[in-house]
Amino acid sequence: MTVVVVGSIAFDAVTTPFGERGRMLGGSAVHFSLSASFFSDVRVVGPVGDDFGEDEYAVLHDRGVITDDIERIESGKTFFWRGHYDYDLNTARTDETQLNVFGEFEPKLSEDSKRADTLFLANIQPDLQLEVRNQCKAARLAGLDSMNLWIDTARDSLVRAIGAVDLVLMNDAELRMLTDEPNLARAAAAVRALGPRIVVAKQGEYGAALFSEEGFFALPGYPLEDVLDPTGAGDSFAGGFLGYLDAHREDGLSEPVLQRAMTYGSVMASFNVEEFGTERVRRLTIDEINERFAEFKHMTHFEAIPIEVRAAR
Amino acid sequence: MTVVVVGSIAFDAVTTPFGERGRMLGGSAVHFSLSASFFSDVRVVGPVGDDFGEDEYAVLHDRGVITDDIERIESGKTFFWRGHYDYDLNTARTDETQLNVFGEFEPKLSEDSKRADTLFLANIQPDLQLEVRNQCKAARLAGLDSMNLWIDTARDSLVRAIGAVDLVLMNDAELRMLTDEPNLARAAAAVRALGPRIVVAKQGEYGAALFSEEGFFALPGYPLEDVLDPTGAGDSFAGGFLGYLDAHREDGLSEPVLQRAMTYGSVMASFNVEEFGTERVRRLTIDEINERFAEFKHMTHFEAIPIEVRAAR
Repeated sequence: MTVVVVGSIAFDAVTTPFGERGRMLGGSAVHFSLSASFFSDVRVVGPVGDDFGEDEYAVLHDRGVITDDIERIESGKTFFWRGHYDYDLNTARTDETQLNVFGEFEPKLSEDSKRADTLFLANIQPDLQLEVRNQCKAARLAGLDSMNLWIDTARDSLVRAIGAVDLVLMNDAELRMLTDEPNLARAAAAVRALGPRIVVAKQGEYGAALFSEEGFFALPGYPLEDVLDPTGAGDSFAGGFLGYLDAHREDGLSEPVLQRAMTYGSVMASFNVEEFGTERVRRLTIDEINERFAEFKHMTHFEAIPIEVRAAR
Repeated sequence: MTVVVVGSIAFDAVTTPFGERGRMLGGSAVHFSLSASFFSDVRVVGPVGDDFGEDEYAVLHDRGVITDDIERIESGKTFFWRGHYDYDLNTARTDETQLNVFGEFEPKLSEDSKRADTLFLANIQPDLQLEVRNQCKAARLAGLDSMNLWIDTARDSLVRAIGAVDLVLMNDAELRMLTDEPNLARAAAAVRALGPRIVVAKQGEYGAALFSEEGFFALPGYPLEDVLDPTGAGDSFAGGFLGYLDAHREDGLSEPVLQRAMTYGSVMASFNVEEFGTERVRRLTIDEINERFAEFKHMTHFEAIPIEVRAAR
């Protein structure tokens, strides 16, 4: 089983109330890959410049991520994002974006990537997402993420891309914005009407909710007292979610598999934000993942004892 | 077992994008009472004017709520609130408040109410909350709600009132505001440091989260496609939560009991918002409550299958 992810590979400069990093490995495809690598084989597709060196490759290789489809542009520079978060950590504020090699990116998947079982189109321009989807016809499960920028500037393209995938993972605010529906259940239904079988609403500190034909499933966020850097949380969630689904394709997209995938996604997002960039996930272990999975179970499960009609009524 | 609630008994005029009511029974103590009445005996304390008639008493009596401690002021008028909600239904906008008899309210609990096992201090001025708490010394479990108004104008009083109760149920934004802590886990810990053993953060459509010495427990909101009127949802939650706890005092505040109480609170809030004011809860049945409880279980529970270290790593 293999997951292919297409998205940004970046250097990030991030300032939060709890610290800063001037230049660290980041990007949606990187966060996704590292997270998914705990569950399945991962191939990452995206462009980098000649400033992307051995150290950066090593982070991916240490987790077994296959980097054959990283396109290295000599005399180009890697995508760069600089941003900060205010004290509530809810919203990333972009201070600077240098598209660099990403500005000319034309995804070309290798034959191995085209044969992948599972595809994740991280948040990139939706025409590119559709182009990759069409190259990766073998994928039996394709998902995408997007953002307000594309809803504003490329809505028709985004709707087409959504129509070509099986699942959509987006922030709940962006699901509402895309569908012009303030009610999330209605927004999710409207997105599912465009084609995807499954919609996952990422809700930041409130967790995540899954809408599918079979019903609704939701998990709270993990109650961390120390969130150092939320960058990459959504892509870490997607990596855990799709990585788990890819590894359990033989079970189909059954409810129990989807529920566990949601939980592993939540687990991975919770680790991601504990430190800056990829720092925490790099040294994460399977035992830690399973331990937090059990914590999620403990903090959401309860035993039912039906109440009875009261005698006096 | 008896729950006493002190709070507003009101006429509400509410406009939402889905309809309006010019004058309907409302108020925090009313929503709480009706909800709690499915679980335990309820006594309601608060003032009304001579415009509060048989029809209004009948709504409470139909659910077995004991109204002996409603103080009816002849030639006074009942508290009146007029407000509206915008399309996202997240925030109540107050258009008019007439305190009327509530402006001079000096709570005087009957001997029966003073002997109650459980006390809920709905959102009223915190000095009044403390005064009632001191009258109701027998209560082995006391909880309170509050709001941004009192945090702004009576913070010291509110801190004293919080120090005299066992549990605090507040909106998460108000917990953050009270403690000046944007991180909810830290905000809850700071409130618990003031005295209460348990803090419940109400999170609107995102559900509710419980913080206690034993740990964290959270539930998502019920994914309704049609929310007609959110007024009273928080008090309905509190009614289900404290009503269930009151009815199960013999089990102590054990984790399983608290978890079920959270679920019944969520169930009651979800029904409350389906229609205007008290309309839905008035004709609610135990079977409907138990059925939705089971739905909550279905939409939050999952089976754990630990992942294993992958061979290639």
